[in-house]
Amino acid sequence: MKKIAILGTGSVGQTLASKFIALGYDVMIGTRNVSEKLTDTKSDGYGNKPFKEWHSLNNLAKLGTFREASAFGEILLNATKGSFSIAALKLAGAENLKGKILIDVANPLDSSKGMPPTLLPELSNTNSLGEEIQRTFPELKVVKTLNTMWNGLMVAPDMLNNGDHVVFMCGNHTDAKKKVKDILISFGWRDKNILDLGDISASRGTEMYLPLWLRVFGAFNNGAFNIKIIS
Amino acid sequence: MKKIAILGTGSVGQTLASKFIALGYDVMIGTRNVSEKLTDTKSDGYGNKPFKEWHSLNNLAKLGTFREASAFGEILLNATKGSFSIAALKLAGAENLKGKILIDVANPLDSSKGMPPTLLPELSNTNSLGEEIQRTFPELKVVKTLNTMWNGLMVAPDMLNNGDHVVFMCGNHTDAKKKVKDILISFGWRDKNILDLGDISASRGTEMYLPLWLRVFGAFNNGAFNIKIIS
Repeated sequence: MKKIAILGTGSVGQTLASKFIALGYDVMIGTRNVSEKLTDTKSDGYGNKPFKEWHSLNNLAKLGTFREASAFGEILLNATKGSFSIAALKLAGAENLKGKILIDVANPLDSSKGMPPTLLPELSNTNSLGEEIQRTFPELKVVKTLNTMWNGLMVAPDMLNNGDHVVFMCGNHTDAKKKVKDILISFGWRDKNILDLGDISASRGTEMYLPLWLRVFGAFNNGAFNIKIIS
Repeated sequence: MKKIAILGTGSVGQTLASKFIALGYDVMIGTRNVSEKLTDTKSDGYGNKPFKEWHSLNNLAKLGTFREASAFGEILLNATKGSFSIAALKLAGAENLKGKILIDVANPLDSSKGMPPTLLPELSNTNSLGEEIQRTFPELKVVKTLNTMWNGLMVAPDMLNNGDHVVFMCGNHTDAKKKVKDILISFGWRDKNILDLGDISASRGTEMYLPLWLRVFGAFNNGAFNIKIIS
């Protein structure tokens, strides 16, 4: 059984954890403080139910600290808030990251300046979260993907247009991108709709698409959309 | 005959000027220095031929200073470099802008940090060129549109997928957006593919899409592509 660690307990982490369980993976979710997470009864800022309600229905997912989850996972997936991702990976411990693939689906959103969110200035334009993670943890093989859409669509592309819309991917490690592509295909993505944009610096492009995504979301009032490249 | 001023003599301005002439508009192109522009024999930094070669084949387009063109035009179109747009509009003179629609197709690209370009920091994330123009020249009715694609596609959407792909539009003035929508339809855009994202602050979204556009361009090595929203 392939072991994967999902870092982050929010709706993105939950959706991906459920999908990996359905695909037969052994899943551990990483969080800052396990006992707090399991006793917390508050909804998050976006109106999502407390984690323990999801977990009671998805109890095949193990829960551990960032360190425990990262030690457990053969593959890691970053679904933490972009503003917290570097700190979460520091808590994981360099020895638990070494040589592993990190699938990074997070975005460096900054909600401190009102809605819709902007991007964290230090992680946009001439930098990006994907690059910052790769630079800070050179022992990881970072593959940025899936960050340009609503989480429901990440794991069920067939929900729209028979799955005919685009998912971007980038990273410095060809072998890692090949493995992540196989995972995307197992989610239902078709080879022809997985667009490799090159090295990890292309994260700038996919993360900076978020402000447009948020405006289109505002116009549609519904996250179940994506883009297709017409050429 | 409807009079339009195209500010900017580059390939975007040329393409739009040709299209407006074909549609029966009276066109004046605005530039910094008319005699310099007509005697310049150098190609631009992107390998485009000197303006005078285009102009010899498109001599229905008048050429004037930014001030002359803006006085002439009932509608204005900004196709200058994003880093120069505010200065160009200052040269136009406030009295020549008053109450007019400005169609802004420019992007605040910054090529000073290498390729692909980034965005000018002061005109991205928490600001945008569209907003900065509207704020600096409140006498204008700024409508941001067409800035998310290669200029050839702006005026010939049917080139791809029977024209079924998206063009965004935003601005603070409903009457101005209605008129610009009619112009887009005259270019061949269909009503259902013209997506109004709201007020001018949505320029942040469409301008910040450029880094992704540039990466897709890099992957395709061809600018003849656009996106379609799948929902």
